[in-house]
Amino acid sequence: MSIPTPSDKAYVPFVSVENMMKLIHHIGIEEMLTGLAEYIEQDFKRWELFDKTPRIASHSEEGVIELMPTSDGEVYGFKYVNGHPKNTKEGLQTVTAFGLLANVGNGYPVLLSEMTMLTALRTAATSALVAKYLAPKGADTMAMIGNGAQSEFQSLAMKAIVGIKTVRLWDIDKAATQKAARNLQGMGLEVVECASAEESMEGAQIITTCTADKQYATILTDNMVGAGVHINAIGGDCPGKTELAPAILERSDVFVEFPPQTRVEGEIQQMPEDFAVTELWQVMTGAAKGRTSDSQITLFDSVGFATEDFSALRYVRDRIAGTEFHQPLDMLADPDDPRDLFGMLRRATPA
Amino acid sequence: MSIPTPSDKAYVPFVSVENMMKLIHHIGIEEMLTGLAEYIEQDFKRWELFDKTPRIASHSEEGVIELMPTSDGEVYGFKYVNGHPKNTKEGLQTVTAFGLLANVGNGYPVLLSEMTMLTALRTAATSALVAKYLAPKGADTMAMIGNGAQSEFQSLAMKAIVGIKTVRLWDIDKAATQKAARNLQGMGLEVVECASAEESMEGAQIITTCTADKQYATILTDNMVGAGVHINAIGGDCPGKTELAPAILERSDVFVEFPPQTRVEGEIQQMPEDFAVTELWQVMTGAAKGRTSDSQITLFDSVGFATEDFSALRYVRDRIAGTEFHQPLDMLADPDDPRDLFGMLRRATPA
Repeated sequence: MSIPTPSDKAYVPFVSVENMMKLIHHIGIEEMLTGLAEYIEQDFKRWELFDKTPRIASHSEEGVIELMPTSDGEVYGFKYVNGHPKNTKEGLQTVTAFGLLANVGNGYPVLLSEMTMLTALRTAATSALVAKYLAPKGADTMAMIGNGAQSEFQSLAMKAIVGIKTVRLWDIDKAATQKAARNLQGMGLEVVECASAEESMEGAQIITTCTADKQYATILTDNMVGAGVHINAIGGDCPGKTELAPAILERSDVFVEFPPQTRVEGEIQQMPEDFAVTELWQVMTGAAKGRTSDSQITLFDSVGFATEDFSALRYVRDRIAGTEFHQPLDMLADPDDPRDLFGMLRRATPA
Repeated sequence: MSIPTPSDKAYVPFVSVENMMKLIHHIGIEEMLTGLAEYIEQDFKRWELFDKTPRIASHSEEGVIELMPTSDGEVYGFKYVNGHPKNTKEGLQTVTAFGLLANVGNGYPVLLSEMTMLTALRTAATSALVAKYLAPKGADTMAMIGNGAQSEFQSLAMKAIVGIKTVRLWDIDKAATQKAARNLQGMGLEVVECASAEESMEGAQIITTCTADKQYATILTDNMVGAGVHINAIGGDCPGKTELAPAILERSDVFVEFPPQTRVEGEIQQMPEDFAVTELWQVMTGAAKGRTSDSQITLFDSVGFATEDFSALRYVRDRIAGTEFHQPLDMLADPDDPRDLFGMLRRATPA
């Protein structure tokens, strides 16, 4: 007897890396960043609906593997993501990821997607969404410190969503800066390659730090940061990995995604447990204030939260409908009679 | 420019349902159950090595979605699994699952596999492995109470691993019993369809309960269970879902996988928090005793633990090597220069 063809119920739409890249180009990267930011904002505004737990991390000497689940009561989502700073030396990505959405009502997966590309986009979209609320009005220049895999996405999101016109690049590795500058050619941004962190911050109203070393680093010291800027701190995102001098945190108003997670993983892991922070969802709903003065330093202590991946997967699910940018994956057994899994197996016996 | 082909590093071997069924038939179901039991036993014997956390459950009115991660320090694995008892009424599986193995050293996934079929096999292999340690010597008859999707797998594993010759089927739904009996035809077991739970237990040294209702059910009452049997309680596996009268637990020596999880999800959720249990890994290493007398009732309060899925995925990974029973899945972005994710995306711009 031949292998029975799985029914439609057994197929899960899968978005490969190749299809994700096609989808991004089909939509346009800036439009996609803007669309992702809208979905992320929608979900922040219905924050209290979500089942929130800190990510489940499996730490090793070399890095971390994490599962980030959440649910809005109707849709469940999770992301698998690793972080291995040493990977780049071996020609591998520091961060790779994939994610899944499922129907809460019956537990069946409805989308499996690559999320290495998608995480870079959603991280950038989140940064820019937050900067839209917190950066000084009229901000047109960003210092981009750390010119690795995230840097171009961050730059374009700040252009598309905040209106940044100039990005000032700096990295301890000059080749990384040259790579980012080359990639950003012809994308509508003025790109300046800088020789030091200090130089990159000249005239910048937004300072983005995104470096990868797993250590208590001090990418920004206190005296480097002037009044009135918005700091978008991306790289400090796991225990033992920070980028900012504690003195900067003391001078700043710090905004976070989910305090129980950020206190363990973010820049504020350096601060006392009761260090005051403002939750972003409250800024977005109007329940808390964002920027209140021109001289204030606002700081987004970004670690990445499960709802942002959920929003990104929702966006992809909505945008692949009716397109060819996905393929059916036979990952769920679906016998005609659900109690008859064994019969399905027996009927699949090769002739 | 054309879409670049991902390098080998970007591909994850994927075992679809169709390929899993082909693999099972290629190996032979009884040999595969025996092989799975060996891997599961190996991992129980190195229990202390594993990173163990109770599964992360997202409960809803209709059911539960769970992530079950673990790691032995070199390999990381997790399973996604749902449990929705109402699904069968809608023509869907109560339980569907898939799983993943990854390299702890660099975080890259190395296997994605369907696990609906594989979970049925590993659950049966675990039950039979435990019965091999705990059932009375010479056990040749099993009562199989609840004739749903798991029942044939349980029966065959007990045949292959414990040497059961007769299985006595009972279910409140006669059609389920008929289905199981039909499926087990020609598999080398004497199959008896019974008219009541009591009848199914006549002459049985092993009693397996595997029913699906999410409630405090009493599939077995105290007076139904005689001395000297081994009870393999599969169905009580989440909060609010049990199958046995508490009085049976009081008369039994209860063996469990991972006490912190079983106390929440297993039959012993009905008992005080300090109810005595023995951990299976200690029985397998010889650190604790299994069956000590002919009149003793041994009870495996099975809920399923992450290491068993880890063992099953290890087995599949080892057995698909060199076969055609997997396909490459493009789920990890893999730029030539790992810091150049954006360049990979730009180079994929359609002509």
